[in-house]
Amino acid sequence: MEPNQVDIVAEYADILQVGTRNMQNYSLLTAVGRVARPVMLKRGYGATIEEWLMSAEYIVSSGNPNVILCERGIRTFETYTRNTLDLAAVPLLHHLTHLPVIVDPSHATGKRWLIKPMSMAGVAAGADGVMVEVHPRPDEALSDGEQSITIQQFSELMTSLRAIHAQVGDLHGDPVLPNTVLKVGGAGKH
Amino acid sequence: MEPNQVDIVAEYADILQVGTRNMQNYSLLTAVGRVARPVMLKRGYGATIEEWLMSAEYIVSSGNPNVILCERGIRTFETYTRNTLDLAAVPLLHHLTHLPVIVDPSHATGKRWLIKPMSMAGVAAGADGVMVEVHPRPDEALSDGEQSITIQQFSELMTSLRAIHAQVGDLHGDPVLPNTVLKVGGAGKH
Amino acid sequence: MEPNQVDIVAEYADILQVGTRNMQNYSLLTAVGRVARPVMLKRGYGATIEEWLMSAEYIVSSGNPNVILCERGIRTFETYTRNTLDLAAVPLLHHLTHLPVIVDPSHATGKRWLIKPMSMAGVAAGADGVMVEVHPRPDEALSDGEQSITIQQFSELMTSLRAIHAQVGDLHGDPVLPNTVLKVGGAGKH
Amino acid sequence: MEPNQVDIVAEYADILQVGTRNMQNYSLLTAVGRVARPVMLKRGYGATIEEWLMSAEYIVSSGNPNVILCERGIRTFETYTRNTLDLAAVPLLHHLTHLPVIVDPSHATGKRWLIKPMSMAGVAAGADGVMVEVHPRPDEALSDGEQSITIQQFSELMTSLRAIHAQVGDLHGDPVLPNTVLKVGGAGKH
Repeated sequence: MEPNQVDIVAEYADILQVGTRNMQNYSLLTAVGRVARPVMLKRGYGATIEEWLMSAEYIVSSGNPNVILCERGIRTFETYTRNTLDLAAVPLLHHLTHLPVIVDPSHATGKRWLIKPMSMAGVAAGADGVMVEVHPRPDEALSDGEQSITIQQFSELMTSLRAIHAQVGDLHGDPVLPNTVLKVGGAGKH
Repeated sequence: MEPNQVDIVAEYADILQVGTRNMQNYSLLTAVGRVARPVMLKRGYGATIEEWLMSAEYIVSSGNPNVILCERGIRTFETYTRNTLDLAAVPLLHHLTHLPVIVDPSHATGKRWLIKPMSMAGVAAGADGVMVEVHPRPDEALSDGEQSITIQQFSELMTSLRAIHAQVGDLHGDPVLPNTVLKVGGAGKH
Repeated sequence: MEPNQVDIVAEYADILQVGTRNMQNYSLLTAVGRVARPVMLKRGYGATIEEWLMSAEYIVSSGNPNVILCERGIRTFETYTRNTLDLAAVPLLHHLTHLPVIVDPSHATGKRWLIKPMSMAGVAAGADGVMVEVHPRPDEALSDGEQSITIQQFSELMTSLRAIHAQVGDLHGDPVLPNTVLKVGGAGKH
Repeated sequence: MEPNQVDIVAEYADILQVGTRNMQNYSLLTAVGRVARPVMLKRGYGATIEEWLMSAEYIVSSGNPNVILCERGIRTFETYTRNTLDLAAVPLLHHLTHLPVIVDPSHATGKRWLIKPMSMAGVAAGADGVMVEVHPRPDEALSDGEQSITIQQFSELMTSLRAIHAQVGDLHGDPVLPNTVLKVGGAGKH
């Protein structure tokens, strides 16, 4: 998405996403800051929490207060997972900002069977939602099939997340259910 | 702890701990593999999951099958927390080995107020226990006070962990309560 | 620099620079691939050598074969220097591609007094040039003064680099002097 | 090497080496600090420069002032090389301490053909020596053959290093030839 494509995208999409590789694309941040759509800002895979907040500030100071922060893993020496999901970022961000924070275990781990435990961990850490890749037949997916779950697994995941969230809600005093953002289709890089 | 001190320590201690800086001290691993005490093997802060399992194998192949793996954070570029707690290691290790896995949010984050959410996240990810620093008056602690909670906070933490664990237990089919390992005193480096 | 600003910039500038935060801004890569100006592509601070080459390929496959790769340090746990200059990238890239490779010790280290030894190391590793920040009075610079050298120091640096390069040239069979790219002014982020 | 083996090793070896996995094995550091042999202290692959100096201080404060620091690469997200050789550590350490600093490009890169350019870069950065793996027939080596050069290549490398060093010596005012430490045999981990 180029800055000059933001308007047309905003006409049709409910939420604009700024991907991990564009977290510090300042022209794009300014452009999405000028439209009346929530923006999901994924953390740069090499970015600190402080830089991530600065990028959010770019959007907010351009006039758009509706920014959702999405932790999607950072690069480390560990190669077993695609990236290392930094869940401490969730309570840290709740301490540093009022913006909602969600977690993307699909891109962070790159492994389908890690989505459930890491989603549950994310909600237990206080995440306001999770973003998971769902596909009717993951093995036939054109992109990201390895990190996608089926619709049936998604349904079971939601049951587990509601159970965890009920406990966290009591503890944190926020009884709202986690918002699940479905990413539908797309062969892009996030 | 030197290899030739292992016997005397094992006479008095219930569990032997191999700290993060000694995860690949092969003489020590062999020595703790020869005593009849469980060994808690902390992950090296720069070690991969594979190397960590290799170190556990050193202990087991020396004759001691009772190894507990403790995730305590790895080094990354992020400086807001002391280390980055790699919670994906928990379900990964449950997939790769039968050994119990616990989580140490105190050393991982270095911040007292992150202990609760990260302990809850650890249990939600499937951890068999957590290890937290507890001190009657953390601000007066000679070591690690910044990352210690009070006895009252520990009690509240246990209530939250039991609530989370009850949900995870149902989901994973393992109803056992998490074992909490208390580290008492000590000015060492873990 | 936005994609739609590339044409006007190319009208006035001799070389276009894609900064570290935009190494994977694919719209921008495509845009600079369509103009008749050499492009200096800085390595993303969190990017692998393979990803860096992929980004260069974006530019080349858009029609512009004149890409210069610039190693400027990657993010690691070490905090003494701003980033860690990955000099092994220089001979690696000479093995993997015919594109010229230069080194930026100013941004990599963030320390003025490390520019000379790291420039010399870069040339000894086979770099085709170095890019250093130079300012008549670094302490009064509006940006990057801490990592800038004076004009006099630059002159001395060039003498040292020529001496090192004379030896490397003989050894590698390439007697051409290193090209030094001066960055003049600018308060941007690279 | 266990602490209680240090005396017998010191009886036969000219230099004691503390490997990367033992840089923070404090019992061993204290033990090698009590013998009359120079100690080569390799940097922990996950250790900061500050921690490395602290470990050297352990040895020196135990009575042994003859410590040689050996940079051998740190762990990063880059997987093309085995580790990332942090050459900025060389001038940094010359600034922070009087101890000699050498560079090990064999373990840092894991690739035979990177030894020459990275050795040259190390000397250009001011290293007091290099440590390279040499084997008469590297392809038949029981250990580390991939990162070993032949005796003939070693001879050519020394010619190149002398040429680079002659230039650096003039510039830094230290005309002494780099000391090359040959590692002979050994199947250990360094």
